[in-house]
Amino acid sequence: MKKLISSPETVVADALRGLALAHPGVRVDHERRVVYRAEPKDFGTVALVSGGGSGHEPLHTGYVGFGMLDAAVAGDVFTSPTPDQIHAATIAVERGVGVLHIVKNYTGDVLNFELAAELAQAARIEVRTVLVADDVAVADSTFTAGRRGTGTTVLLEKIVGAAAEQGHDLDTLHELATRIAASGRSMGVALSAATVPAAGVPTFELADNEIEWGVGIHGEPGRARQTMAPAPELAERLVGPLVADGLPAGDAIVMLSGLGATPLIELYAMLAEMVPLLEAVGVRAVRTLVGNTITALDMAGCLITVLPVDAELLSYWDAPVETPALRWGR
Amino acid sequence: MKKLISSPETVVADALRGLALAHPGVRVDHERRVVYRAEPKDFGTVALVSGGGSGHEPLHTGYVGFGMLDAAVAGDVFTSPTPDQIHAATIAVERGVGVLHIVKNYTGDVLNFELAAELAQAARIEVRTVLVADDVAVADSTFTAGRRGTGTTVLLEKIVGAAAEQGHDLDTLHELATRIAASGRSMGVALSAATVPAAGVPTFELADNEIEWGVGIHGEPGRARQTMAPAPELAERLVGPLVADGLPAGDAIVMLSGLGATPLIELYAMLAEMVPLLEAVGVRAVRTLVGNTITALDMAGCLITVLPVDAELLSYWDAPVETPALRWGR
Repeated sequence: MKKLISSPETVVADALRGLALAHPGVRVDHERRVVYRAEPKDFGTVALVSGGGSGHEPLHTGYVGFGMLDAAVAGDVFTSPTPDQIHAATIAVERGVGVLHIVKNYTGDVLNFELAAELAQAARIEVRTVLVADDVAVADSTFTAGRRGTGTTVLLEKIVGAAAEQGHDLDTLHELATRIAASGRSMGVALSAATVPAAGVPTFELADNEIEWGVGIHGEPGRARQTMAPAPELAERLVGPLVADGLPAGDAIVMLSGLGATPLIELYAMLAEMVPLLEAVGVRAVRTLVGNTITALDMAGCLITVLPVDAELLSYWDAPVETPALRWGR
Repeated sequence: MKKLISSPETVVADALRGLALAHPGVRVDHERRVVYRAEPKDFGTVALVSGGGSGHEPLHTGYVGFGMLDAAVAGDVFTSPTPDQIHAATIAVERGVGVLHIVKNYTGDVLNFELAAELAQAARIEVRTVLVADDVAVADSTFTAGRRGTGTTVLLEKIVGAAAEQGHDLDTLHELATRIAASGRSMGVALSAATVPAAGVPTFELADNEIEWGVGIHGEPGRARQTMAPAPELAERLVGPLVADGLPAGDAIVMLSGLGATPLIELYAMLAEMVPLLEAVGVRAVRTLVGNTITALDMAGCLITVLPVDAELLSYWDAPVETPALRWGR
């Protein structure tokens, strides 16, 4: 294992130190591993909290800031944060009108965010939870009951974050978030496995010409292992399952994320194949986001996420955002 | 070789198609492989043209847009664009008051930009050229006479792009660019080699515990091959040569780029070690840019660039920019 880290034990804490040094717009509670906005929201505004295992950067810590999250809670690599961490974040950011928890559907995350919500409610803080389970690859997986939560989380955090900034109440934001979680779809492919620092070896082995369809962002098995193919065929096998799952015609935000070790030239080459395939079924990519937006350590491969949008969602998408990883228009 | 591409022959063209589909703010001349702003500058404004071999994305095609480049010319992978391509870009963007060519110091680039400048001058277009040769690793290299041009190019394109937007003349911009090129310094390390699609095999071989110090962004040999070390030691060996080269105390922009296959968690873990080392010699990282800003296909590793700045340079850095890869504040 060759990684630019001090040690497997300190990598999460070290990366949070780096994040804090790089971005004056965030403040890090290093003891609890929570990233906050340096300038908290006004009283009377709903706060958004997300989090999960580390190793998916910039998700979630890179999405803290104006127009997106109020706090992100970092677990160990590929490990859910604890209820105590999540609770600390929740009480720190609440501004009297409730907190929305944004949770990816993995067993540990679901359980720990549930416990944190109970702790918050015992402290008279209203919490609503939206669960993202958008990965169409498999019905259940080694880490989940139901579909796994992946790329839609990024789009949801941006859109609901913008809506929260505009002062909507918890009911409205929860409804909006639920609608997004229900309509976003993702599908990924791995060309190589990630190496968890504490393990030191790849989470699975692929032959030189083998790829894993519908891989999970922790290396969970997908639908099938097949031989490598050129981009047009790969694009078909990624877009196809989204369409088969009921992706409706119309405008959409298309996100193509590298999984950590895949360079931008390959992502753009893939996008060139995907956009026409989507157009062929009436899905128009009115906005795109291409790059490492949700990753799996040093896994090679990509994940496509398609979210159908109307004018309202688009206006929230286009609204100003200022976070370490996503920044525009302010 | 496993890559998300259609074929080695079409990867550059395919990636440009993807870029055009993803970003309505740019327009691509697919025949000549030039990326332009969709909305050209006003007459009477100096235009900025850069370019080079592909495989370093988002450099340069991702940096075309308001506040940065007017055109980027894409060569084949790790191969200079031709004088004809560069000339086409130059005459397309000139607005009556001259064009600045931003060239990384590689033999092919230098020669072809020189020929393009002569063609432009024959067409009565005034061209000035700034050469970036900021890589302190080696005095000469397999690809260059003199130092190689790397990360300072990104910072130069942003800063001089902002100054051009404010209407400064060609002399002033050339002087500013020359000052930046003379004061920016970079140093990189590779944990693995890149695989050029047309070659199909890595450009060099590293053992499981071996790294290449001062690697070039085309895989050119650096200073030495040594055994892998933890982040604090790696950081010292990257920052040390910048200091030894005369990096002055004071405010600086610090860019830490992944070389293509290195995830963000590792970059932040490295940054956490580097910022204190810089502070120890009086260099204050007043702005940072962390991510894949200049890459070498799927090479694992990182490149640090430090540019000393004064209030003027900082104000240009902070000025609005809207390109596929860098976007803020407009």
